[in-house]
Amino acid sequence: MQLNRGPEFAKGNGTENDFLILPDPAGELNLTPARVRALCDRRRGLGADGVLRVVRTGDIDDAPAGIPARTWFMDYRNADGSIAEMCGNGVRVFARYLVGTGLAETSSEQPELPIGTRAGLRTVSTHPDGQVSVDMGPATVHGESSATVDGSSRKGLAVDVGNPHLACVVQEGLERVDLSAVPHYDAELFTNGVNIELVQDDGPGRVRMRVHERGVGETRSCGTGTVAAAVASLHADGHPTGRRIVEVPGGTVEVEVTARTSVLTGPAVLVGHGRLDADWWQRLDQP
Amino acid sequence: MQLNRGPEFAKGNGTENDFLILPDPAGELNLTPARVRALCDRRRGLGADGVLRVVRTGDIDDAPAGIPARTWFMDYRNADGSIAEMCGNGVRVFARYLVGTGLAETSSEQPELPIGTRAGLRTVSTHPDGQVSVDMGPATVHGESSATVDGSSRKGLAVDVGNPHLACVVQEGLERVDLSAVPHYDAELFTNGVNIELVQDDGPGRVRMRVHERGVGETRSCGTGTVAAAVASLHADGHPTGRRIVEVPGGTVEVEVTARTSVLTGPAVLVGHGRLDADWWQRLDQP
Repeated sequence: MQLNRGPEFAKGNGTENDFLILPDPAGELNLTPARVRALCDRRRGLGADGVLRVVRTGDIDDAPAGIPARTWFMDYRNADGSIAEMCGNGVRVFARYLVGTGLAETSSEQPELPIGTRAGLRTVSTHPDGQVSVDMGPATVHGESSATVDGSSRKGLAVDVGNPHLACVVQEGLERVDLSAVPHYDAELFTNGVNIELVQDDGPGRVRMRVHERGVGETRSCGTGTVAAAVASLHADGHPTGRRIVEVPGGTVEVEVTARTSVLTGPAVLVGHGRLDADWWQRLDQP
Repeated sequence: MQLNRGPEFAKGNGTENDFLILPDPAGELNLTPARVRALCDRRRGLGADGVLRVVRTGDIDDAPAGIPARTWFMDYRNADGSIAEMCGNGVRVFARYLVGTGLAETSSEQPELPIGTRAGLRTVSTHPDGQVSVDMGPATVHGESSATVDGSSRKGLAVDVGNPHLACVVQEGLERVDLSAVPHYDAELFTNGVNIELVQDDGPGRVRMRVHERGVGETRSCGTGTVAAAVASLHADGHPTGRRIVEVPGGTVEVEVTARTSVLTGPAVLVGHGRLDADWWQRLDQP
């Protein structure tokens, strides 16, 4: 019976989309799907929507080509143990952790920080007020599709933001939709599953959004989802580019869509940090 | 942007009833209901069913008389910020934390450890296999009552285990009951609310149990609830004393009911420990 010192962790959230951060600068952590599931279990473990392993790009076998080997890579895992390409809320928390721990440095002359992800290299900027901006890369519209959500068919815009989205603009009743079941979508178009957003107008330049994330369920936010929501809202108004403030259940972000890329700005909160119990961690590796 | 060092914490669970432990040996921590709610929020904070503050009995204004001032006191708060008298899962995790950190010592000659609670002094014993036994004090039967659970009226035994319970033995269908809503109970009998257990026979000397904890909702376990369940199961068989193995959704415990007291034996797991972010903690104290 000891408080023995296993791997380091931190817990944080971006608009209440919450993450466990596991620093692994030497690329030695054996982060199995079973361990991810136990860590993210909200009663058996510490609890989170996903895990962000902090690792060098050179230690990631399936990293996209062209990212320097020493660049910090966000190895993102969903709560169910599966691998995800990118997470716009996670990458803000990831950046805040890098700067907070001194693993990376930013300054007023050099506010930008490159971060490797499975969707490619992303650049973040930290602001003095604690907000973090992320260049999410281009959001690519793949045309229209539809999904059955809470028993109703909803038309939406298929948008790729490094990961696949179907953003459905609704006229009313956003709060009344039951998002507890997995929506039924076009599995031929979305062969790797899809995140589904419901988006409702909320005044000039503002929308409210709810999201069902593949492999997780409804969450209080989804960063790439807010980009898809902004693109769908702008598209509905006939604009290929522009800005939208997006209110999600967990907070508020701002999305700027340009001809070249999209930029997401929002909060990044660190709640605590410490070490996993070494015995607990070891037992998760036993069959 | 720093990983600044606020108050210490640990996270642990007993049969997946999970707790944040906040050591406060000097009695200085300003643990407001708002801070408890934020800590226990599973996305905004760290997440737990409740908080266990580790404090000296002498620093607790509403401690029961007769507990020595230097005895460690389990200041237990529910996730909604309210104060609770006692928690049989929490006190095992609390004991394990005390021994693990060296705040208290046990040995083969002196395996017992006194712990102050709002329900009175409790004695725990730590076992080499990691299980912890807790003398829960006498479980007092106050007669029969009934509650409406998932639309059906259920008869049960009113049992006081330091906190109030209504343990309802059911013949079948335990897994199918919807415990998401707050049950309707006799508010004149249970003036401070009540924890409600559903208990079903599961072979000789074994029962399965589900529980709705006041102020929390359905949980994967409730230590005092397993004692009430064992008392109700024994009572249904015409026995005032005896043993029951109680299987809850989060694991398995054993309860021994004697003429003098009741003893709960079960697991106590520590998952991790560290420090809260000081900025995050301070912001919770602002209006």
